[in-house]
Amino acid sequence: MDVILVINSGSSSIKFHAFSVSGGTLEPIAGGKLEELYTTPRLQVKRQNGEVIEERRWPAGELLGHDDAIAFLLDWLRAHAGGATLLAVGHRVVHGGERYFEPVRVDAEVLDALEALVPLAPLHQPHNLAAIHSIAARNSQVPQIACFDTAFHHTQPTIATRYALPPDITSHGVRRYGFHGLSYEYIASALPQYSERAARGKTVVLHLGNGASMTAMDGSRSMASTMGFTAVEGLVMGTRCGSLDPGVVLWMIEEAHMDARAIGSLLYKRSGLLGVSGISSDMRTLLASHAPAAAEAVDLFCYRISRELGSLAAALGGLDAIVFTAGIGEYAPPVRERVCRLAAWLGVSLDASANARHGPRINDTQSAVEVWVIPTNEELMIARHTLERLEG
Amino acid sequence: MDVILVINSGSSSIKFHAFSVSGGTLEPIAGGKLEELYTTPRLQVKRQNGEVIEERRWPAGELLGHDDAIAFLLDWLRAHAGGATLLAVGHRVVHGGERYFEPVRVDAEVLDALEALVPLAPLHQPHNLAAIHSIAARNSQVPQIACFDTAFHHTQPTIATRYALPPDITSHGVRRYGFHGLSYEYIASALPQYSERAARGKTVVLHLGNGASMTAMDGSRSMASTMGFTAVEGLVMGTRCGSLDPGVVLWMIEEAHMDARAIGSLLYKRSGLLGVSGISSDMRTLLASHAPAAAEAVDLFCYRISRELGSLAAALGGLDAIVFTAGIGEYAPPVRERVCRLAAWLGVSLDASANARHGPRINDTQSAVEVWVIPTNEELMIARHTLERLEG
Repeated sequence: MDVILVINSGSSSIKFHAFSVSGGTLEPIAGGKLEELYTTPRLQVKRQNGEVIEERRWPAGELLGHDDAIAFLLDWLRAHAGGATLLAVGHRVVHGGERYFEPVRVDAEVLDALEALVPLAPLHQPHNLAAIHSIAARNSQVPQIACFDTAFHHTQPTIATRYALPPDITSHGVRRYGFHGLSYEYIASALPQYSERAARGKTVVLHLGNGASMTAMDGSRSMASTMGFTAVEGLVMGTRCGSLDPGVVLWMIEEAHMDARAIGSLLYKRSGLLGVSGISSDMRTLLASHAPAAAEAVDLFCYRISRELGSLAAALGGLDAIVFTAGIGEYAPPVRERVCRLAAWLGVSLDASANARHGPRINDTQSAVEVWVIPTNEELMIARHTLERLEG
Repeated sequence: MDVILVINSGSSSIKFHAFSVSGGTLEPIAGGKLEELYTTPRLQVKRQNGEVIEERRWPAGELLGHDDAIAFLLDWLRAHAGGATLLAVGHRVVHGGERYFEPVRVDAEVLDALEALVPLAPLHQPHNLAAIHSIAARNSQVPQIACFDTAFHHTQPTIATRYALPPDITSHGVRRYGFHGLSYEYIASALPQYSERAARGKTVVLHLGNGASMTAMDGSRSMASTMGFTAVEGLVMGTRCGSLDPGVVLWMIEEAHMDARAIGSLLYKRSGLLGVSGISSDMRTLLASHAPAAAEAVDLFCYRISRELGSLAAALGGLDAIVFTAGIGEYAPPVRERVCRLAAWLGVSLDASANARHGPRINDTQSAVEVWVIPTNEELMIARHTLERLEG
């Protein structure tokens, strides 16, 4: 059996998925994650049917880092592969900069170029690349394919990507990039199965997970997105603030005497749903809570989505369809209900019972705008790209 | 004759307008400005009919500060008043914080409270208050009324004013305030003369000057605005960047090694139309230029307006009318034309010849949305408030 391995290496976890390849067809076999690297590492692996095939915790004090984790993972996979051949490894890499707008097979030159992008994504890019380094050091023969979260957005018109800053700043690559591109690309690939109108027309996709963004697509091509230079701009997220007056950051420096590290930590880890509610970054917890602050956080989350929906509809010059995806998008009917209510002015009208059963289509017959719930699948998107790069 | 004096004291200039008061009616008499304080000061005063009645330059080296300028101005006015009585002075004050949402007669306690707001508007508030101090020191009897740029926005729902930050930050007054409130209030007061529908309905007012913002009004009350905690958020302005990923500010600190002062100077003085075009902060210059970078700056200015218009229409849940005001809004038909073209999806349709002659009504008969050009008059708004506070 031929296998493609998909790796998503983050700051404190490594997620992986294995796909079998047969006659050009990809089938998920198993997946898992190694979490809490550097603190209290643990591994769980499940077969595609949900059956847990491995659970393991490391003893306290035995701090597993990225390189150790990759080494362990390769050994574990080899031991459990039953003679399967590892064809290639596909990686989620957050930033492709202005150069990489499609997946690329990684060699030394590519790796250098991707290292040079670390200043644009210091919180994510190093961890993505660490996994590539570790695998190359242990198995230099296996092809590794980098798939970028920014790439899908390269079709955006320049005007949607510009900040009103002078060239001495923008020449360093300071522009809007947009992220969650592999999710949006998967949705774009799936749209024709759901709706010709949504696939060909003006569609706003809401990727609402712990990280959250929205993308305006025209004919399934990205025209604008809420995330910009970094993944902190745009919507309210689990722990990220979303759009913020840059004057607030100056206030934090000059009046609150915070340094960049403290501000970064505040904006990325202590804000968003968690910061507003003081309770949780998890939408399920907030929806289940009776605390007024939980309701306020949910309200703000939905309000900001509604404002951005208007802004993205403006980027498209109209609206044919809305698609909800990712954790909150796929599983939180009350959020979808509020967002659709706030979008009534755009002709959106919800079918409450379809919404309760997660659609896939959740607009009613009066609605001028189609509304869909479509599960995303970034891992499959990466596996597809990886297979294509091998064949191409 | 009774006179009300209106003062707008900025970082390097003091603008003033004199109104006669007769039977509760205000008539503008004359106005002028003392510019380039601290560098090459000059004064010009004109009668309401445009006739220049004073022009003066100070010798190089004789640096006029705010206090000197106010002293000179009071003397000059006394010498030219012809026996008129100064009833009161009304001041434009940028920030009223969460406490002052209507004009207030300034006493020692109020002045202390306004000084405490300096950290929220360090570039403007101190200069506004300097003029109040100088006049109080020289003429303690004359009532002084502070009129706030933030006050009109106090009707906004809380949700429109919140950033997704935790209480340890927001408790310091870090929220959206919105500015240009005296201009919006004037427009709101004038709307019924133009259109009942615009006055009672969902109306977005575009205050497009060197500083630029937009406000969504429902029944002439502010519901949301593009400027937030500071006057740098929102639209592209003459030299201000408008909305910017807070991650860009972190990048400037950590990767470009800029300090807060340099970043503030960049975002407030070197960005916007000037930064993008490299040519000018003045829309007239850019519209007259054939340079591609000038066209790019104008395009970005209009594109961003169109995105914010969608966002503000979402805040209102629809759109009945658009109002253009302030320098660019009142005098730049090509900007209005582009903005309206980008708003076609909202049902906006322009009457080109009405637009060329500055309206006041510039939508055509097919338009689902009314479009108006209405001159603003912040000075008159301040004079009205000042008179009301004397009478009240």
